[in-house]
Amino acid sequence: MLYIIDVLGTIAFAISGVLVAINKKMDLFGILIIAFVTAVGGGTLRDIMIGDTPVSWMNNITYTYVILASAIVAIVLRSKIDYLRTSLFLFDTIGIGLYTLVGIEKGVHASLHPIICIALGTITASFGGVMRDILCNEIPVIFRKEIYATACILGGIAYFLLSELPIENNVVFLIAGIVVIVARLLAVKFKISLPTIYKD
Amino acid sequence: MLYIIDVLGTIAFAISGVLVAINKKMDLFGILIIAFVTAVGGGTLRDIMIGDTPVSWMNNITYTYVILASAIVAIVLRSKIDYLRTSLFLFDTIGIGLYTLVGIEKGVHASLHPIICIALGTITASFGGVMRDILCNEIPVIFRKEIYATACILGGIAYFLLSELPIENNVVFLIAGIVVIVARLLAVKFKISLPTIYKD
Amino acid sequence: MLYIIDVLGTIAFAISGVLVAINKKMDLFGILIIAFVTAVGGGTLRDIMIGDTPVSWMNNITYTYVILASAIVAIVLRSKIDYLRTSLFLFDTIGIGLYTLVGIEKGVHASLHPIICIALGTITASFGGVMRDILCNEIPVIFRKEIYATACILGGIAYFLLSELPIENNVVFLIAGIVVIVARLLAVKFKISLPTIYKD
Repeated sequence: MLYIIDVLGTIAFAISGVLVAINKKMDLFGILIIAFVTAVGGGTLRDIMIGDTPVSWMNNITYTYVILASAIVAIVLRSKIDYLRTSLFLFDTIGIGLYTLVGIEKGVHASLHPIICIALGTITASFGGVMRDILCNEIPVIFRKEIYATACILGGIAYFLLSELPIENNVVFLIAGIVVIVARLLAVKFKISLPTIYKD
Repeated sequence: MLYIIDVLGTIAFAISGVLVAINKKMDLFGILIIAFVTAVGGGTLRDIMIGDTPVSWMNNITYTYVILASAIVAIVLRSKIDYLRTSLFLFDTIGIGLYTLVGIEKGVHASLHPIICIALGTITASFGGVMRDILCNEIPVIFRKEIYATACILGGIAYFLLSELPIENNVVFLIAGIVVIVARLLAVKFKISLPTIYKD
Repeated sequence: MLYIIDVLGTIAFAISGVLVAINKKMDLFGILIIAFVTAVGGGTLRDIMIGDTPVSWMNNITYTYVILASAIVAIVLRSKIDYLRTSLFLFDTIGIGLYTLVGIEKGVHASLHPIICIALGTITASFGGVMRDILCNEIPVIFRKEIYATACILGGIAYFLLSELPIENNVVFLIAGIVVIVARLLAVKFKISLPTIYKD
């Protein structure tokens, strides 16, 4: 079950990379790299910072196959990908929920402070997109208008609050993941964003 | 004492991140990330390259609190921060001196060559700012007109020269740190910069 | 022999960094950093991702000397470097062949999947240039029109195919390296590039 979510999230992240790279008129190699970086960049940074190497995607070749296949399909069908926008957004959001919690649990496993664990979860879920934008010479979109890091943080807080209660870890994981997903869906639906500090 | 300097340096670095991020019209999350990256980015790169993981700020939650608090205060008081410019510059300079020596000593501890240790010290003191500028889609300012990496290198050379003499390590550390600080203050005061290789 | 190739490749990479940095009007420090990052960035990323730290250039001071000397010579002779363009291109190409195979063998040594090993080889050979371009605030040139990552991948495939045969490892290494070099030379000579997916 988690595995299916992981694959769906990887697909959504890889496709988002393909779309940005095509927008920048990159060649085939560039598109594949951006797809890869978007999909595994956050987890790679997390693993490097906690010293869990070789980084996780290197130990499981499935990620590579999923990313390559997603990228090729996205390149071929790029003119029709608009029809999939809603599905992709859903996969992406579910992926973010999962990645956040995977990052948090890696931090817990390394005995780090809950705040650091939440930071690791947020990094896992969001820094692939940050690297994608830097490689494409853009200011990362997440620093300007995306709510989704906030969703990761809310999910992380839920995780640690629920961990205090006598609930099984699987259930905590599931509920916290749902918090991330619901927070992001609500934010997008109702166009909620962080309060701005700029006057118009 | 070192601890107080470290905290002051972290504050100055975090605030410099906030100011650049505000200038780029980032949202609250983006500002916090840039504050964080500016404050801990150099040390993170150093720790990753020598394999000292989890990286140091993850093992001591104080840094996180100091950075969050500094960023929030800087955001709230951003219109008044100009009055603090001199203090911030001083904290920043003292922080650079300390960070350079912390980086050098980590290299010495890992039995690396003195030149590599000086490189590690310079990376610790300057790559937070480099990452800040890259995330903000700018060519790093330190590559174009800042003297301060040169100050780090001078301090590093002082450290290794003094280490040859029969002086206590604490005193070497202190003098080398003062070399960094004085070199930077003089460079800024007398507008000394590296010789240019460009005509006009 | 390998050592000489390694030094020649390092020289070519460092000089390519110097030229890009001068083009961006960086100061002396910036130029040196870009020379360094171009020369050792790919290997550094590889070592960090597989957890082989301190990263390799930190353990052998020769790289630092070679890069510093190359950068200084390139800065001094920058107006005459055009005469060396063909030699530099050859060194660069030979360096890419070597770096690809060094990366692949590090992956094999870490028991990683052949595809991951090829990715490591390609990263070793190409990410120094990617980092150079990011630090100079450009979209990496390799993502837009360079064939050379493709040459690395072809060499990597040759390596693993030949490894199946009863051939000595040194010979496999040599032939695969020649595949990278010849593929790149042919691609440049006949202006072969990846098929484009854009209708201009």
